[in-house]
Amino acid sequence: MRAVVMRNSALVVDTVPDPEPGPGEAIVKTLACGICGSDLHALKFADRVVDVARETEAPFTMDPTRDVVMGHEFCVEVLDYGPGTEGPVRPGGRAVSMPLVFRPSGIHGVGYSNEIPGGYGERMVLSASLLLEVPNGLATEHAALTEPMAVGLHAVEKARLDPGDAAMVFGCGPIGLAVIAALRLKSVEPIVAGDYSPMRRELARRLGAHVVVDPKARRMIDAYREAADLRPAAVFECVGVPGVLADVMRQAPRGAKVVVAGVCMEDDAIRPMIGINKELSLQFVLGYTPLEFADTLVAIADGRIDVSPLVTGKVGVEGVAGAFDELGRPERHAKILVEPWRA
Amino acid sequence: MRAVVMRNSALVVDTVPDPEPGPGEAIVKTLACGICGSDLHALKFADRVVDVARETEAPFTMDPTRDVVMGHEFCVEVLDYGPGTEGPVRPGGRAVSMPLVFRPSGIHGVGYSNEIPGGYGERMVLSASLLLEVPNGLATEHAALTEPMAVGLHAVEKARLDPGDAAMVFGCGPIGLAVIAALRLKSVEPIVAGDYSPMRRELARRLGAHVVVDPKARRMIDAYREAADLRPAAVFECVGVPGVLADVMRQAPRGAKVVVAGVCMEDDAIRPMIGINKELSLQFVLGYTPLEFADTLVAIADGRIDVSPLVTGKVGVEGVAGAFDELGRPERHAKILVEPWRA
Repeated sequence: MRAVVMRNSALVVDTVPDPEPGPGEAIVKTLACGICGSDLHALKFADRVVDVARETEAPFTMDPTRDVVMGHEFCVEVLDYGPGTEGPVRPGGRAVSMPLVFRPSGIHGVGYSNEIPGGYGERMVLSASLLLEVPNGLATEHAALTEPMAVGLHAVEKARLDPGDAAMVFGCGPIGLAVIAALRLKSVEPIVAGDYSPMRRELARRLGAHVVVDPKARRMIDAYREAADLRPAAVFECVGVPGVLADVMRQAPRGAKVVVAGVCMEDDAIRPMIGINKELSLQFVLGYTPLEFADTLVAIADGRIDVSPLVTGKVGVEGVAGAFDELGRPERHAKILVEPWRA
Repeated sequence: MRAVVMRNSALVVDTVPDPEPGPGEAIVKTLACGICGSDLHALKFADRVVDVARETEAPFTMDPTRDVVMGHEFCVEVLDYGPGTEGPVRPGGRAVSMPLVFRPSGIHGVGYSNEIPGGYGERMVLSASLLLEVPNGLATEHAALTEPMAVGLHAVEKARLDPGDAAMVFGCGPIGLAVIAALRLKSVEPIVAGDYSPMRRELARRLGAHVVVDPKARRMIDAYREAADLRPAAVFECVGVPGVLADVMRQAPRGAKVVVAGVCMEDDAIRPMIGINKELSLQFVLGYTPLEFADTLVAIADGRIDVSPLVTGKVGVEGVAGAFDELGRPERHAKILVEPWRA
């Protein structure tokens, strides 16, 4: 099959062996797969990703010196099942899945595995038991956003919101936008969101932020105090570059629950005394639970999360390398979908 | 009165004006006052303490270019009350108090104020409403440990322990020992505690640690896994020097609740990816609530917290500067008490 392969820290289009479904697995056709900031990180910082996975005893990892087909935010068409396997979605039906495959050899992360190709290729194998049927009428491109939106829901769940909490969201890239949508789902008000990009601020407003801030023009905390007064705050760091966490801690109100959803690949300096004097908590988050993933699909399907503004581009496999470059420019894009079946 | 004065970043013994109790205040004789690590910090990093207090809009601060009489861990004898004031402890009775004085001019931190002298002087004024009578039979030197032990109880409360949680304590100075005592009070088991000092490890055992570790000989996490297997962990950072938090995060089990009780005055580098991959939370803590303070006094008085091993030295005002030097050497001391009435 045709696929975008991460090889020697570059993305190349190549023909790779078709995956074969084993027992308990489905073979699927990739209909659409989002490009995630983590994929950009993995391309740039592959060694570091692997080192941290090993050091933290993560359940799976990859060897970046060997081919990897990335892509973990997908909507698929079920083609068939492996030997002796039935699944919850009939062949021909559409599905989403958490990007995990359980094999006797262990757990594999779809898109971060040398063994299990991800959604930047035409075909994938998935664990049959994890398939969730896409409700009739939900567009494929919106179903494909289940995974990134679930990241936002998980971040909000981990904030352990109390009644009356208001929210600040630093950064309105895909993670920040997913957080805003999840906060809105939980009826949190006000949601104060900041980003340097006018386009992203506009998306933040469409996803449900009550106040949007250009941090060049105004401090987030000033906008927050005007909107929320002294209400307790859940604060979401959704940028993930060095220095942002320290700035978030400096601006966070006393006692704030800070959720670190941005993925900073480098060392970062903080000032512990700022955290101590304000008794801040920092909750680092990763992924989502199966229930959060399924809830997100339902919320998208019934319109409680409106993802329609998020898809700003679509490419075939030949366009993926260029899309990675484009995604560095926040003025242009939120989410770009790969459609590997495209000519 | 005679007092140890912080003046130009040094400690000098001098005669200062006797404090005068205003309405709502008591005048008390200092019977014993512990030397706290925060006092060592304040002497060394006074400007930084003040800057952070201002930046975090702390309720009170001091001017380090003017005299400060430190000392906020005290047991006192009530001498008298200010105009029109009655208090819960009769003159002649012994009391402890949270180190705060409420005045029309604002809240003052006893021992970190230019206006309110702390327990390194012969006399103090305290808010009458905050006085807690020392139960009959509780030694003055043990009652004086209410404040630091309350810091430990607060840190443990902020960990939001779940049933079945076990604990790791990094550092067995006074804060680490107070945390161990509070964990024991909450029947947490096992408590795995580490310190480079054999004396402090011995104190940790006497305060209730089930396993003590010399980090030079063995990693904390290895001792933890042997003792607690895969049980969820509350992890207490009680050292407060740069680099320790990063090491704690590296060793913390997946999903651990890390409580940052050590007071690191300097910038500190962390690796966010370690926190993310393990979904750690970091809870910075400061002080205690009035209820935690009162509960700590009761727990000491009825023997559920045994503080008797902690007092390793006593000095008069002339000995305070030397005691500050001594406390840098963990082999010799846990808590040194100042008895300003001594000749």
